[in-house]
Amino acid sequence: MPFVRISLNRGRSPEYIRALADNTHRALVEAFDVPADDRFQVIHQHEPGELIFDRGYFIDGERSDGFVLIHVQAGRVRSEAAKRATYRRLVELLGQSPGIRPEDVMITISTSQPEDWSFGHGMAQMLDKPIPRCSHVE
Amino acid sequence: MPFVRISLNRGRSPEYIRALADNTHRALVEAFDVPADDRFQVIHQHEPGELIFDRGYFIDGERSDGFVLIHVQAGRVRSEAAKRATYRRLVELLGQSPGIRPEDVMITISTSQPEDWSFGHGMAQMLDKPIPRCSHVE
Amino acid sequence: MPFVRISLNRGRSPEYIRALADNTHRALVEAFDVPADDRFQVIHQHEPGELIFDRGYFIDGERSDGFVLIHVQAGRVRSEAAKRATYRRLVELLGQSPGIRPEDVMITISTSQPEDWSFGHGMAQMLDKPIPRCSHVE
Repeated sequence: MPFVRISLNRGRSPEYIRALADNTHRALVEAFDVPADDRFQVIHQHEPGELIFDRGYFIDGERSDGFVLIHVQAGRVRSEAAKRATYRRLVELLGQSPGIRPEDVMITISTSQPEDWSFGHGMAQMLDKPIPRCSHVE
Repeated sequence: MPFVRISLNRGRSPEYIRALADNTHRALVEAFDVPADDRFQVIHQHEPGELIFDRGYFIDGERSDGFVLIHVQAGRVRSEAAKRATYRRLVELLGQSPGIRPEDVMITISTSQPEDWSFGHGMAQMLDKPIPRCSHVE
Repeated sequence: MPFVRISLNRGRSPEYIRALADNTHRALVEAFDVPADDRFQVIHQHEPGELIFDRGYFIDGERSDGFVLIHVQAGRVRSEAAKRATYRRLVELLGQSPGIRPEDVMITISTSQPEDWSFGHGMAQMLDKPIPRCSHVE
């Protein structure tokens, strides 16, 4: 259910991008109550001049060209505590792999409702089916 | 008023993409109470590794590389029934043309308010003007 | 806090795009109560067929290939008056530089909450820190 859009500067390896996407998802699974296989992500790689950000706004330290902007569209409301835990865990995991500085991780969440999602077949699965919980870890 | 963002893997023909966009719009006109000429769409074609999705989450069958993710930003609230009808009609029409499998059509809706839209000239048309209804079919 | 996504047809100079981004931000600072260094923008340049819009819907005159679609994700609610002032100021400034026709400026706003933003370091700055106000003009 979360639909995640990640924006960064072009120039990273496929492995870097995969690790970024993997650990973004892992943080959502661990802290945002997302099933392990509920994964839908889009990566936007930007040319010079297409990703514009202030280097210092609202943080200690400075953002670098390694800045990533992660937008999470959630399908149901989460608590403030869950959001805070997600921010912390995301920065932690992205620091481990692919090695992104804490200053360079920006996240924003927007929330819609269960009726706002169709996962395929023209159905509104979040209304009509129990949310699948799988035991395997990705 | 709806602003529609469609993400898919790169590699389709211009005709395929046009049919995808046309029938996405047609489903909104038929089921989501959208005027025929209220059409604003953006297509994002993704390189390998940029469109990441689970193959089986919440559906019977499997998603393929032909997966499309359609995000609709609506300008006013619609009923659950209208949303359900839109999901069904969209899958039906995209199955007809350009021929997308029902498993491969994911849709998500987010909703803002009439005051959140300016269609040009710096005006807030949804507050100040009657919504235009045209009789011509696109 | 606003996260701004700007879509336009590919083919403009870097200077044009920079002026578009600069004046979009300036309008938000002047009319939408945004601090001068609270700037996070992403540009999407589209190939032919990827940016689809009706030429006449809801406006006098006609949209041209110079059409730009600006999506503002705000982090807290603004008044209708502030939104209207933003629309007007944006069209005014973009008309001055880079010289965009009023018919070609479309804006849409969506709103999330202060708890929905992390600006770095895994923190929820809008909840825990006073919003920085800087005196320098960008």
